[in-house]
Amino acid sequence: MAPSGDGGALPTQRIEALSDGVFAIAMTLLVLELRVPEVGAGGVAAALGLVAPKLLAYALGFVILATLWIGQHFQFVFVRTMDRRLLWINLVFLLVVSSLPFGVALLGSYPTDAVAVAFYGVQLELAGLCLLVHWRLAVRDGHTTPRPLPEAAAAALEGRIVFGLVGYGVGTALAALDPRLSLLVYAIVPVAYARAGRIDRHVSGG
Amino acid sequence: MAPSGDGGALPTQRIEALSDGVFAIAMTLLVLELRVPEVGAGGVAAALGLVAPKLLAYALGFVILATLWIGQHFQFVFVRTMDRRLLWINLVFLLVVSSLPFGVALLGSYPTDAVAVAFYGVQLELAGLCLLVHWRLAVRDGHTTPRPLPEAAAAALEGRIVFGLVGYGVGTALAALDPRLSLLVYAIVPVAYARAGRIDRHVSGG
Amino acid sequence: MAPSGDGGALPTQRIEALSDGVFAIAMTLLVLELRVPEVGAGGVAAALGLVAPKLLAYALGFVILATLWIGQHFQFVFVRTMDRRLLWINLVFLLVVSSLPFGVALLGSYPTDAVAVAFYGVQLELAGLCLLVHWRLAVRDGHTTPRPLPEAAAAALEGRIVFGLVGYGVGTALAALDPRLSLLVYAIVPVAYARAGRIDRHVSGG
Amino acid sequence: MAPSGDGGALPTQRIEALSDGVFAIAMTLLVLELRVPEVGAGGVAAALGLVAPKLLAYALGFVILATLWIGQHFQFVFVRTMDRRLLWINLVFLLVVSSLPFGVALLGSYPTDAVAVAFYGVQLELAGLCLLVHWRLAVRDGHTTPRPLPEAAAAALEGRIVFGLVGYGVGTALAALDPRLSLLVYAIVPVAYARAGRIDRHVSGG
Repeated sequence: MAPSGDGGALPTQRIEALSDGVFAIAMTLLVLELRVPEVGAGGVAAALGLVAPKLLAYALGFVILATLWIGQHFQFVFVRTMDRRLLWINLVFLLVVSSLPFGVALLGSYPTDAVAVAFYGVQLELAGLCLLVHWRLAVRDGHTTPRPLPEAAAAALEGRIVFGLVGYGVGTALAALDPRLSLLVYAIVPVAYARAGRIDRHVSGG
Repeated sequence: MAPSGDGGALPTQRIEALSDGVFAIAMTLLVLELRVPEVGAGGVAAALGLVAPKLLAYALGFVILATLWIGQHFQFVFVRTMDRRLLWINLVFLLVVSSLPFGVALLGSYPTDAVAVAFYGVQLELAGLCLLVHWRLAVRDGHTTPRPLPEAAAAALEGRIVFGLVGYGVGTALAALDPRLSLLVYAIVPVAYARAGRIDRHVSGG
Repeated sequence: MAPSGDGGALPTQRIEALSDGVFAIAMTLLVLELRVPEVGAGGVAAALGLVAPKLLAYALGFVILATLWIGQHFQFVFVRTMDRRLLWINLVFLLVVSSLPFGVALLGSYPTDAVAVAFYGVQLELAGLCLLVHWRLAVRDGHTTPRPLPEAAAAALEGRIVFGLVGYGVGTALAALDPRLSLLVYAIVPVAYARAGRIDRHVSGG
Repeated sequence: MAPSGDGGALPTQRIEALSDGVFAIAMTLLVLELRVPEVGAGGVAAALGLVAPKLLAYALGFVILATLWIGQHFQFVFVRTMDRRLLWINLVFLLVVSSLPFGVALLGSYPTDAVAVAFYGVQLELAGLCLLVHWRLAVRDGHTTPRPLPEAAAAALEGRIVFGLVGYGVGTALAALDPRLSLLVYAIVPVAYARAGRIDRHVSGG
């Protein structure tokens, strides 16, 4: 592993731009799974009906990517410098993010299969873990602004990541019981994320 | 839903960069529908003739994406801060935008089918609605600059969004009558958008 | 058409970012034409030999995109504000740019067909025309910096665009004679562009 | 070739943004090789097992792209201006980068074939060579900051590039002996890159 991060003070623009690029592509690649349907006796309307499950998987995939993007975005409001180690944590995060369209496609093809549902859940757990490690190291190694970071802000941001980790973790575990329960949980977590929380008050006056 | 936006003051660079990425990809993905044609007895020229309808659908799709991009771009001349709610509205807007290539591909395959034509119209209505809600909330919650925003500027920008909503709405409704009328309206609205309007005077001296 | 550009003073960051996105995707999409070859009796080496023409078309396509990107980039060293009309000219430029992968794929499939070769030439002419109109209007309407722009700088930049228009124009015309002559000219023009010219001296101390 | 670079002083934002775009796409395109598997008697779990080699090739490809991106990123901490020649070197670098997904796909299909393994190694050597030439010319022609650049910083950065060139070179050569040895070396080099080195101390206080 890389040594302690103190000493490195790279700007954050490049990794933020790379992240925006990877997210933009991952979000848009999802639509490539939506093939124009072959039209049978029922016409285009019936054909669109057959595509509907993929449309839903697409929207769910997009919304989950959106919550991950917002999560990383909020971190970079406070994290104002990088070192090599933080760059690598972000890159592993992006590796997971760029693999999510595969998970979504798998889910779109086998929406009630326990393995497919759990695979997607593990991907979400890995993404959340990257965010958690990134935040903890950035705070510990002095890459955050203002310095010192208010305890309440650090805790509020971490709390949201942990909420996701627990939520998606429960969802993944439920796949053993009933994959549809997992999907329900996967869909509920982003809704909870859409609510502003304590951390939102700390970004005011940025 | 998220609580009132006051308090949140995220910068706008990230969501603008993500938007540029999603638009760039959506615009370029359209070209993937253009497959190199199989060349028969008529040679490449005849084969290109068969691709012509897809080329037209591609150009129309690109131009409509361009008007949406310009519409969002003009908003961000005035909207200088974000909160979580505005981020989410932008993300839903990008979800619709990234789904437009699917609508264009559907249109390219069934250009005279009422359902396909109306489907595309509904997508455009949703995109316009996102822009309208985004603008109204940003103005109401004090995310715009200069403060206070001149009434005339706010009205001029909103007027252009409403024009598109009405235009594409009429186009969508006409699909029930004759899908070709819809396509005509879809093609005319961007032309009208290319004209500078009252809002253009308010961005001078930015 | 849009009225005179005076009055509009949008920043250029968004259109520059959108352009970088479209170019990045167009450059990278070219590689999707490179399918992993089926390996026959000759092994991977022989199979790669069969892919070689596509590899060459890919490299040529990339280099031509690179010259167009550099051409637009140099303009934006001087062009520091936008109005709606300039945005639209850039967007039409990007429409042409994003359609180039289709032209390259056509060329890769029918490298000695006069129509395919001329089609690509016309695309390059359209791109050059957009750059020329963009530059002239930007200079005329006062969107350039420093103000007034040194005559020599304006002429040097325009000279490079006209050189490309004439070069690709000759290349396109030669398709009627022998498509291989066209390809030779298409390959030579970027080489000439790689040389620094008079305009390069004007960007010093930017 | 282009004449000496003195005189040109283009900003670096555009080429950095274009690079981020190309890297983001190349990283994400890799996932397109991951097709949702056909599920046989063993269910989704067994089908995922069959995809595992491609998943590994994907992760390896991503990590190698990440080291190249970090390598270029570190250069741009010091390289603060561009001329036409440096732009072209970056563009050739991006040409190689955007062709890497093809090499990865080839590797994913023929992971034990000497030619496929060596092909990928040559791509990595070319990318490293671009980085080396870029760095040397940038330093020589005064495009770096602070001026003069500390000898130790210049040497430390160059040392890392040379390390990669030697490492991937050895890996490529080993393909003649045993392609699996090459893959091992290809996988070890990025791990070594993940370690902070002397150059990391020079970016502090950026």
